[in-house]
Amino acid sequence: MRDIVIFSGSAHPEIAREICHDLGRPLSPTRVSRFANDCLEVQLQDNCRERDVFIIQPLVPPVQENLVELLLMLDAARGASAARTTVVMPHFAYARSDKKDAPRISIGARLVADLLSTAGADRVLTMTMHSPQVHGFFSVPVDHLHALSELAAHFRGDDLSDTVVVSPDFGNAKAASAFARRLGTPVAAGAKQRFSDDKVSITSVIGDVEGRDVIILDDEVARGSTVVELIERLRERKVRSIRVACTHGLFTDGALDRLGAMEDVTEIVCTNTVPLAPEKATPKLRVLSIAPALAEAIRRIHNGESVSSLFDTP
Amino acid sequence: MRDIVIFSGSAHPEIAREICHDLGRPLSPTRVSRFANDCLEVQLQDNCRERDVFIIQPLVPPVQENLVELLLMLDAARGASAARTTVVMPHFAYARSDKKDAPRISIGARLVADLLSTAGADRVLTMTMHSPQVHGFFSVPVDHLHALSELAAHFRGDDLSDTVVVSPDFGNAKAASAFARRLGTPVAAGAKQRFSDDKVSITSVIGDVEGRDVIILDDEVARGSTVVELIERLRERKVRSIRVACTHGLFTDGALDRLGAMEDVTEIVCTNTVPLAPEKATPKLRVLSIAPALAEAIRRIHNGESVSSLFDTP
Amino acid sequence: MRDIVIFSGSAHPEIAREICHDLGRPLSPTRVSRFANDCLEVQLQDNCRERDVFIIQPLVPPVQENLVELLLMLDAARGASAARTTVVMPHFAYARSDKKDAPRISIGARLVADLLSTAGADRVLTMTMHSPQVHGFFSVPVDHLHALSELAAHFRGDDLSDTVVVSPDFGNAKAASAFARRLGTPVAAGAKQRFSDDKVSITSVIGDVEGRDVIILDDEVARGSTVVELIERLRERKVRSIRVACTHGLFTDGALDRLGAMEDVTEIVCTNTVPLAPEKATPKLRVLSIAPALAEAIRRIHNGESVSSLFDTP
Amino acid sequence: MRDIVIFSGSAHPEIAREICHDLGRPLSPTRVSRFANDCLEVQLQDNCRERDVFIIQPLVPPVQENLVELLLMLDAARGASAARTTVVMPHFAYARSDKKDAPRISIGARLVADLLSTAGADRVLTMTMHSPQVHGFFSVPVDHLHALSELAAHFRGDDLSDTVVVSPDFGNAKAASAFARRLGTPVAAGAKQRFSDDKVSITSVIGDVEGRDVIILDDEVARGSTVVELIERLRERKVRSIRVACTHGLFTDGALDRLGAMEDVTEIVCTNTVPLAPEKATPKLRVLSIAPALAEAIRRIHNGESVSSLFDTP
Amino acid sequence: MRDIVIFSGSAHPEIAREICHDLGRPLSPTRVSRFANDCLEVQLQDNCRERDVFIIQPLVPPVQENLVELLLMLDAARGASAARTTVVMPHFAYARSDKKDAPRISIGARLVADLLSTAGADRVLTMTMHSPQVHGFFSVPVDHLHALSELAAHFRGDDLSDTVVVSPDFGNAKAASAFARRLGTPVAAGAKQRFSDDKVSITSVIGDVEGRDVIILDDEVARGSTVVELIERLRERKVRSIRVACTHGLFTDGALDRLGAMEDVTEIVCTNTVPLAPEKATPKLRVLSIAPALAEAIRRIHNGESVSSLFDTP
Amino acid sequence: MRDIVIFSGSAHPEIAREICHDLGRPLSPTRVSRFANDCLEVQLQDNCRERDVFIIQPLVPPVQENLVELLLMLDAARGASAARTTVVMPHFAYARSDKKDAPRISIGARLVADLLSTAGADRVLTMTMHSPQVHGFFSVPVDHLHALSELAAHFRGDDLSDTVVVSPDFGNAKAASAFARRLGTPVAAGAKQRFSDDKVSITSVIGDVEGRDVIILDDEVARGSTVVELIERLRERKVRSIRVACTHGLFTDGALDRLGAMEDVTEIVCTNTVPLAPEKATPKLRVLSIAPALAEAIRRIHNGESVSSLFDTP
Repeated sequence: MRDIVIFSGSAHPEIAREICHDLGRPLSPTRVSRFANDCLEVQLQDNCRERDVFIIQPLVPPVQENLVELLLMLDAARGASAARTTVVMPHFAYARSDKKDAPRISIGARLVADLLSTAGADRVLTMTMHSPQVHGFFSVPVDHLHALSELAAHFRGDDLSDTVVVSPDFGNAKAASAFARRLGTPVAAGAKQRFSDDKVSITSVIGDVEGRDVIILDDEVARGSTVVELIERLRERKVRSIRVACTHGLFTDGALDRLGAMEDVTEIVCTNTVPLAPEKATPKLRVLSIAPALAEAIRRIHNGESVSSLFDTP
Repeated sequence: MRDIVIFSGSAHPEIAREICHDLGRPLSPTRVSRFANDCLEVQLQDNCRERDVFIIQPLVPPVQENLVELLLMLDAARGASAARTTVVMPHFAYARSDKKDAPRISIGARLVADLLSTAGADRVLTMTMHSPQVHGFFSVPVDHLHALSELAAHFRGDDLSDTVVVSPDFGNAKAASAFARRLGTPVAAGAKQRFSDDKVSITSVIGDVEGRDVIILDDEVARGSTVVELIERLRERKVRSIRVACTHGLFTDGALDRLGAMEDVTEIVCTNTVPLAPEKATPKLRVLSIAPALAEAIRRIHNGESVSSLFDTP
Repeated sequence: MRDIVIFSGSAHPEIAREICHDLGRPLSPTRVSRFANDCLEVQLQDNCRERDVFIIQPLVPPVQENLVELLLMLDAARGASAARTTVVMPHFAYARSDKKDAPRISIGARLVADLLSTAGADRVLTMTMHSPQVHGFFSVPVDHLHALSELAAHFRGDDLSDTVVVSPDFGNAKAASAFARRLGTPVAAGAKQRFSDDKVSITSVIGDVEGRDVIILDDEVARGSTVVELIERLRERKVRSIRVACTHGLFTDGALDRLGAMEDVTEIVCTNTVPLAPEKATPKLRVLSIAPALAEAIRRIHNGESVSSLFDTP
Repeated sequence: MRDIVIFSGSAHPEIAREICHDLGRPLSPTRVSRFANDCLEVQLQDNCRERDVFIIQPLVPPVQENLVELLLMLDAARGASAARTTVVMPHFAYARSDKKDAPRISIGARLVADLLSTAGADRVLTMTMHSPQVHGFFSVPVDHLHALSELAAHFRGDDLSDTVVVSPDFGNAKAASAFARRLGTPVAAGAKQRFSDDKVSITSVIGDVEGRDVIILDDEVARGSTVVELIERLRERKVRSIRVACTHGLFTDGALDRLGAMEDVTEIVCTNTVPLAPEKATPKLRVLSIAPALAEAIRRIHNGESVSSLFDTP
Repeated sequence: MRDIVIFSGSAHPEIAREICHDLGRPLSPTRVSRFANDCLEVQLQDNCRERDVFIIQPLVPPVQENLVELLLMLDAARGASAARTTVVMPHFAYARSDKKDAPRISIGARLVADLLSTAGADRVLTMTMHSPQVHGFFSVPVDHLHALSELAAHFRGDDLSDTVVVSPDFGNAKAASAFARRLGTPVAAGAKQRFSDDKVSITSVIGDVEGRDVIILDDEVARGSTVVELIERLRERKVRSIRVACTHGLFTDGALDRLGAMEDVTEIVCTNTVPLAPEKATPKLRVLSIAPALAEAIRRIHNGESVSSLFDTP
Repeated sequence: MRDIVIFSGSAHPEIAREICHDLGRPLSPTRVSRFANDCLEVQLQDNCRERDVFIIQPLVPPVQENLVELLLMLDAARGASAARTTVVMPHFAYARSDKKDAPRISIGARLVADLLSTAGADRVLTMTMHSPQVHGFFSVPVDHLHALSELAAHFRGDDLSDTVVVSPDFGNAKAASAFARRLGTPVAAGAKQRFSDDKVSITSVIGDVEGRDVIILDDEVARGSTVVELIERLRERKVRSIRVACTHGLFTDGALDRLGAMEDVTEIVCTNTVPLAPEKATPKLRVLSIAPALAEAIRRIHNGESVSSLFDTP
């Protein structure tokens, strides 16, 4: 069997190193140059010929820089005769641009999926995309993982007898149900109206939450306005305590500070799909690693073993 | 005949407004949003259906931002049923990435050409690409203009009886000859060795330059190290005066300050293919507009008239 | 401007005739043959050369027959030198197959979108697809209409002072809100859990519905089990009366009989995107025509006028 | 070497089971669901990752159902990361739609070939297509087998000293000659004029047939009108006995009853490329299995051995 | 409507001039250069922008030179922004390479069809291809004309009361029947077995030919061995006189001399799809022009009028 | 690992035999037929199934014949189920057609690159293309070798203490520098102006050449006019002796005779990328074999070893 070669772009080298450590394989070096005219050049510094190449690059801020860098790496791998190139994209920011809700805009997620193919991606490994339909935007095979096992493992040691999992909206309710099933708790959901990217309104919470310990579960937290609003509704319903869990901890615009400052929020849990700037950390934050899951998926992809049997759909 | 609709990205709205003014057509508005997760969304705010759409966006710094924005605009125009979409790209930065001079790198200019096609570009209008072969990287028709007429017109009023045009290297010598022919002057050239992106070495100047007024002509000036080195060689050859002319005035890393501070450099001339930050301007700088040339090319493309007959190859 | 030519497949000739009547254009004949070996052959019996061809064929049962027939018609139009071929697909059944919720299945909606492109579709005109993301499955321009105006017009004459619009689930809630806005009524929604294609469970209804006249709004009614379950919940909440409205009235497995037999259901309203077998009709059923809307969209597509300005997103 | 995985669609599971038996490999299960809206969903119920996948599905009635089911299976295999997917299509009904003999029709065989590629077919294994040119409609490699060895083996034990092979027309004469060569008999042919799909006219028989035992050989028998007419001509020429042999026994519209009722027709021989409804069988019918041949071809395709050396062109 | 521009390659400028004369349009000049390294360069010397470009180039000997020249012209037209480029290919030599009758050969006709698309052909206008299935090898629209009207007009003035049309084989019999119907004569056919490209054997002639005036009709005559052998069979059947008619008069290896020297062959008729070397002419040869038919087809293609209604299928 | 199979077209069987000898593998036979109508058919006469196929065919005169033959071989290999097909093209004549220096011409090198892909080339192995940008014309991986090691080895035994390497122009100067570095000599260059394919003018030579032994190094010598003119300039500069070295020895129009007749030219060295007609040979000519280099590259491509590490860029 041809060998694995793993490269990382500039977006998140920490997770790449962790994945390589878990796989027991070296992280092959890349050289990124920026010319005087701001153009990028990326050199893959290991033989790719007939190799099974994996390029680890979540699409996180700066998204455009990371996207173009990724496209250059894909093209370089193809030109260097890689047998197969897999994009390992733990976070796919453009997945939120999944519909044409205004005239004359691009459906960005479909466009980026096509650009990845043009540049040479043979397959994609990603995690918790904003909507499951985005899978259908790709013309190459996609392995779409989730982090429910990791998140559940974190909470399982606690006393969960009075706990309820709450999804901020119904789009995420299916994942929240699967998560609650893993923890053996009931599930509730906010009835949420999203008017624009940064304006949401949660009118009520469906399900029994009074006096309970709440674990809010969302796919990602960016500005955190949805979660903040949900917390307000939960307080009106007199919940006992609140914990926040998500896969993608973007935490922009001071979201982490804001949530961390709330007294009734006792813990914030996310995974490391998105790199966390050190200055953002708060004592309440707990970052779980999904590197072992990605490493296992890479191992199975390479060996032709079933990935779906490992990561059953939530 | 279907109508023209013209949009501009964020890269260089000034030249777009000028082109529209010359064409006597309005510049249709676009709305660019940046989401909390750093993804871009561009809305074309005018009907594109069955229209002849032109999108003006030079690939200038920040190159990656401008490139992705352009791709989103192209896809939006296609989705909005444009009859034809032409990219008007007065400067194509990635054209310099035109060969594989190290193993396992991307030939960036070919990749970007393919990305533009994937996103929906039907044709490209560009100016003075770094090497003429880059034309062959595109699978869509390209109109490749040059700015020699504009540059020549600027100098033609002067006394050129003792003037010589000097090309910094032989790659640009064909253009320099054509330029000299337009001015009725002889031509000379530096014998230049380029070792890497920012390390060049000009060993000699071929042709009679002693005691003459020199016009240095290059396609672009970025850090300006080539021009600076040529000037040193020219000083050794006792030239009388030096003027610098180029199409693309990138002027990075203080290039303009450095050239402007040289006493024997009396004038620096470029065109407006690249937007000039106001703080960069020096009294010696003269920026010529190629908007009229681009406007005329757009008019001819729209009307199906010959563009090559206007812009004869240099 | 090149002429319009309109053909209809076997799926729904009535709506094709109505659209043509509204456009004031003839419906061009097609000849469908079935060979001894069950293969289909479709002949388009009007000159297509350089014409703006529209093929009207909703993907309704028998879906596979209608799909292959449509593909043959598209290929015939291309081979006959049509200038442009638009699929007019008032109902796109495969839009429900929009995600990979089990391993090793096809995302049918994406596959069909690709098949239509392969066969020669240049654009698609469709109505109320199951999820808005399906738009992104197509690589050709899509005009995605909705029938809210037609449905609202039907109810607007009535006394709606005590009426509430109820969406069976939150996936459809955005459309229900827009519909309620049109009628000037409040909106409510069922909290629905879908376990498999024919097993749903609505656990509660969010919003004030007690004692009110309810208009249930859904995108489609097939077996009707969702609506039946919602009605049970609504009865528990003591609503005054119930009306059911949807765009796509598939009404399979006796759904219409079952709903029609309920005493508190006073009216069932759908549009004619799906042909209604005469034997299915009940006195409570009212079918609204969306042919005028489709005709107007076709007229605008042909003339290059904005379609989005007519059918604002709900 | 990666493993073989074999799936069967609904068209002809018997032959799939036989092929798997001959290969000594299990037939992997598939789950076919039909939703309320008549859409199909097919789940491949075995790991396909990096496997050498074969999907067995002749295009036999109901052709459209079987075709769309096949396309869904191909797409599912691709999405499930199959290393290679081969369509095993013992009968390809649309091969008869191989030319444009009327304006504005699709050349159905080319269209279906393109659809198979779009859905993910990497190669095709088929048998006795109606015309050899159809091979050229595919953009993927095709192994085009014939059943002459199987048919010849059936007759070889008999006394063939006074036998002649008769082709109903000259299109099939090349195969008939090869068949006669295998049996050591002379060959004759009907001079046939085909006016439309169901109207043929055989005007004469070329070659010595008087008093002989005739074996009629055709590629397929559907309604059987060609064969019936040939038999009339042969009777006029006073042949001694008649046997009918073909690869594809479609036998529609009572063809088998009609032929079986003829006294001078002593035997009807076909292969099992097309499933035979039990109610169709007559005592005179003998169905030969081509499963061993297909199994051997699959084995060779998988092992990279020459297929042409096994199935020399007739 | 955009204008027509017509170019001719080197293969057959005479027919190009005739077509242009019939259309009343100038033949736009081309410049063909051959470099020292034997590479070709073709310059189209008229503005192609948004024009309806027709390139006239039959694939006749030297076939490879003419094919590559044609590909270069197509690419030049695309790069020069032609609105549409139609290949006018009165003779398509590679159409005979239409099946895979030996292992590991290319189906040349399909390959060439794909090459033409790659180089930029938007449509093809051709005449009397060797088999009708070749139409299906093209992915672009094809207008496939025949020359039966021209050939029939030539003979119609004569006394045809005792004439019979004879096809050398059954592949061409359909065309021969249509031709005979035009002339009001009966039809006969040779029963021909083709073993290889240059080895044929006609075993008998079916139909009444004794004592009649025969017109042999074939699609093309190259070495003429088929026709020669048919003539031998006809002589055995005591025909009264023989005339030979075909669309494509290739006449290689002295075919024309051989046929012209036969006393009972009174006339040889072909069209000008293939250029005739002056030294080949014999007094018995009559070359009919199909330029008017091609000109009329070009006119209709340009104007979007039906071509099939003019050239009804034979 | 799948096996290597190597075929040669008609262009240069000698080098194919040498490569196979060096690899210790047989050269698999091909059968090339030319039909009466001048069409080619090529049969690959060895099993290609799942094999790693290499087709050796430089594009040398007759270029068009060799190109079409190569395309037919590629298509045959694909149809015969080759696992991968690599074009081994030691000389790529069309690489000189790399820019659009006149309106309405094809960029032939890009077109041919696309044709090779269409016909089935999976990768390309070539040597010393006229400009490095041509690499970017290919959409498949390219291994671009040079012959500097072979050429340097030839000279290294000599006394080079007074030798200088001279490049005829600056386009080739980078290679000349690398070559000089290998030999430990200084480098000089002609300042050359190329006006058209056969009209060049060298105005001066830059660098110290007086009294030295000169080795002229160029990529190819066709008519030799550039070299002849350079020699004139060198004579004016009183060089001691002249040797000429190039990779591609095309030597057309008596170039070899002309150079061989010059007294001060003591040796002409080229490689065997281009077959040499025996009648062209002169006693001063020395042909070096690059077969070992190509064989080693093929071995590494097949085994997935780095090729760039062997052939460092000059």
